[in-house]
Amino acid sequence: MITVAIDCMGGDYGPKVTVSAALAFLSSHADTHVFLIGDSPEIERQLARQRAAGDERIRVRHATEVVQMDDSPAAALRGKKDSSMRVMVDLVKSGEADACVSAGNTGALMAIGRFVLKTLPGIDRPAIVSILPTMSGQTYVLDLGANVDCGPEHLLQFGLMGASLVTAIEHKERPTVGLLNIGEEAIKGNEVVKRAAELLAASGLNFVGNVEGDDIYRGRSDVVVCDGFVGNVALKTSEGLAQMLGAALKEEFSKNLYSKLAALVAWPVISAFRRRFDHRRYNGATLIGLRGIVIKSHGSADVFGFQKALERAMEEVRGNVLSRISGRFGEEAA
Amino acid sequence: MITVAIDCMGGDYGPKVTVSAALAFLSSHADTHVFLIGDSPEIERQLARQRAAGDERIRVRHATEVVQMDDSPAAALRGKKDSSMRVMVDLVKSGEADACVSAGNTGALMAIGRFVLKTLPGIDRPAIVSILPTMSGQTYVLDLGANVDCGPEHLLQFGLMGASLVTAIEHKERPTVGLLNIGEEAIKGNEVVKRAAELLAASGLNFVGNVEGDDIYRGRSDVVVCDGFVGNVALKTSEGLAQMLGAALKEEFSKNLYSKLAALVAWPVISAFRRRFDHRRYNGATLIGLRGIVIKSHGSADVFGFQKALERAMEEVRGNVLSRISGRFGEEAA
Repeated sequence: MITVAIDCMGGDYGPKVTVSAALAFLSSHADTHVFLIGDSPEIERQLARQRAAGDERIRVRHATEVVQMDDSPAAALRGKKDSSMRVMVDLVKSGEADACVSAGNTGALMAIGRFVLKTLPGIDRPAIVSILPTMSGQTYVLDLGANVDCGPEHLLQFGLMGASLVTAIEHKERPTVGLLNIGEEAIKGNEVVKRAAELLAASGLNFVGNVEGDDIYRGRSDVVVCDGFVGNVALKTSEGLAQMLGAALKEEFSKNLYSKLAALVAWPVISAFRRRFDHRRYNGATLIGLRGIVIKSHGSADVFGFQKALERAMEEVRGNVLSRISGRFGEEAA
Repeated sequence: MITVAIDCMGGDYGPKVTVSAALAFLSSHADTHVFLIGDSPEIERQLARQRAAGDERIRVRHATEVVQMDDSPAAALRGKKDSSMRVMVDLVKSGEADACVSAGNTGALMAIGRFVLKTLPGIDRPAIVSILPTMSGQTYVLDLGANVDCGPEHLLQFGLMGASLVTAIEHKERPTVGLLNIGEEAIKGNEVVKRAAELLAASGLNFVGNVEGDDIYRGRSDVVVCDGFVGNVALKTSEGLAQMLGAALKEEFSKNLYSKLAALVAWPVISAFRRRFDHRRYNGATLIGLRGIVIKSHGSADVFGFQKALERAMEEVRGNVLSRISGRFGEEAA
């Protein structure tokens, strides 16, 4: 049985989305339970509306506060000890929940996660890892913004954690790990990246060397390691480009009568294309390196997207990601 | 009259592409001349084939060596003093050419450019700047890989140079300048970026503050400033994503009989879409900050793409980009 604690107040839509997604999750996965945390009258209202009140797989926990998107991590941590986010993480700490999912403030979630759960042995800094689609499947990229200044040893740790995650979720015993670098110019990479490459090469990981930005989507490695600044820029740049191309394609298809007709004819094909790269399918970033499974959903996730984040949490519990990371760092230390 | 020196040997296709592009360039722009530099028998053969031998707007210069893509910058600089690239840059230095264009080795081109031409007063490090398409037009991003470790003052210089370039080419007197940063997480940006933001805010530039990866393609600012590592990753990641999406769209449209029919109907619309973001239209990165106009074409550029790079060179000469940069740094220093 897997129990997921859910911060129902986080994200752009709050309980309307999070409670609906929780119900969809429960009905798709028999062996699961959830904690629904937040403003309990509102949560109960949502449950009643969806005829789910009294379901024994659901426990509602009241929390008097909500972490806002513009709260500083410190303010959320120190000033809102009864926030839905904090109560959620506490349930993981106490062992009542196996994992937790929030669509709220990332910085606050990381701060609360670090404070309450602490990091796993051997991990200096937790990282944020997301799955991105590639030509041939998918790839795990970390860090995506938790650590803006990284030393070589942090990048090594990201590689070890990323590989553990791939093994846990995709059952690949020796996932490939690439180090994000730049190629064409005079000096290949900065000093940190050069040293990180040496550490990764000596780590026992299946290290494939440097990968460049375009290799991410070519799927050259199962894991792509980078510092949080570079990773965040790569991720956001991709989002921006995809949005621009999507908007422009729509524009071209609605330009005149002919293009509108063409859009109708091409609709099934375009839909298949859109489904393939539907970012909602990839929703759910893992805050990896904590002594507990903490998943961050995109704030704007809809029911489908938030459900995917809940499923990511479930997969990580099933794949024993925490003990896999601990095991790998044990080997390293040995 | 504008004279452009062309390294005919650089790039994946050499004189076949570069000479054809030069001829197309000459016939599109009356007031231009070119130096064609490289293996003169081969260049003459190409000219004869295209019935352009003896054209008085063309001067052929023989060079005995060619910089290879895998030559180190130092080897190209010290070991190949009669390379087509070196002879090309020398022609800018001597004033015989107003600008130069090569599709060869970027690191070598930068090294030769710095050694022969030196940097403009006030510039510590030249940068590589490219134009990217946006929702609303285009944006100039720098640095794209010349400088992997930058201090705040370098980012400030990139902002000043980028703004000068936009003014020169697009005749905007107060182009907007954004600093590439990351937003959502705890600490916004690293120390270098934070300090650079202060310098940019105090610079007299039309500084719009931090922009994130997705803002690049939203066109939030005319200039986007970042260090060469981050810029290179953003650019290459974009290339990779665009390639993946293009390949997938093609795949979907050739899946079955219906989708093939739909492709036929949608062809004019898809073509218009592709033309809009045709990367060849944006070919030609400027090595900015040198005492001379040096343009790097993509190595795989075809005739159309290489011609665009030649036109970029011409536009920069016409827009007096060098004196604009010097002028701005004069103001700064004053």
